[in-house]
Amino acid sequence: MVVGISILLDFSGVVAEKFHCAAYWESLLDQVIKIGEMTKLHMSSHQFEKVKHHTKPGFYKSNLHGGATAFALLAESHISVHTWPEYQKVVVDVFTCGSQKHIDDIVNFLQDEIQHSDIRITRLKRGGSF
Amino acid sequence: MVVGISILLDFSGVVAEKFHCAAYWESLLDQVIKIGEMTKLHMSSHQFEKVKHHTKPGFYKSNLHGGATAFALLAESHISVHTWPEYQKVVVDVFTCGSQKHIDDIVNFLQDEIQHSDIRITRLKRGGSF
Repeated sequence: MVVGISILLDFSGVVAEKFHCAAYWESLLDQVIKIGEMTKLHMSSHQFEKVKHHTKPGFYKSNLHGGATAFALLAESHISVHTWPEYQKVVVDVFTCGSQKHIDDIVNFLQDEIQHSDIRITRLKRGGSF
Repeated sequence: MVVGISILLDFSGVVAEKFHCAAYWESLLDQVIKIGEMTKLHMSSHQFEKVKHHTKPGFYKSNLHGGATAFALLAESHISVHTWPEYQKVVVDVFTCGSQKHIDDIVNFLQDEIQHSDIRITRLKRGGSF
């Protein structure tokens, strides 16, 4: 018995002007909610401090902005976005137990909106063992 | 380049006394945060109305409580819980870009705390194409 679906989008090579701006990501989630005809219960976000030091490989040195993160709690489950400007990465999770008729529209919108060089999309049925 | 890990836990056959109680699930998320030594940025939750009518197969008729949902935005990403008392289902997502040394402790804690008959656990590395 399936209660919903998770769409996990892992973007690489992202160059977004407003990458580090929590308000931008909140507005992006609002657009997803509108496309999906979802009901928002709550939205929250956070803007992290600038990255000053980092030693991991793959560090994108010309962008030292801190990341941003945003989350929408929905009547139909949730949507989240987390960003790592220092690695040019953005990860979006869309979990809905509502109608799936707009899922492809949401995935297409996010791919158009978040400029990237590479993406992994994972779709998972949720709600138990299958 | 991996930026984090998602642990997706899909519980079936759940009989929880406080299934429908948002405050209970918030306290559960707080315990996960404590075990994981994570930093909470924000917590929100919602308690749904009682389920009055339902026609889907698998409907658990003796429990007509509405579900509850809770979400914690973390410095290390997020944790969410969504419940469907009418199907005896609970779904927990733990996404962390922080230390993974307590991941097994978190998974064990959730399995002990949420009494269930069946579970599916999915672990996914996050942050791009692999």
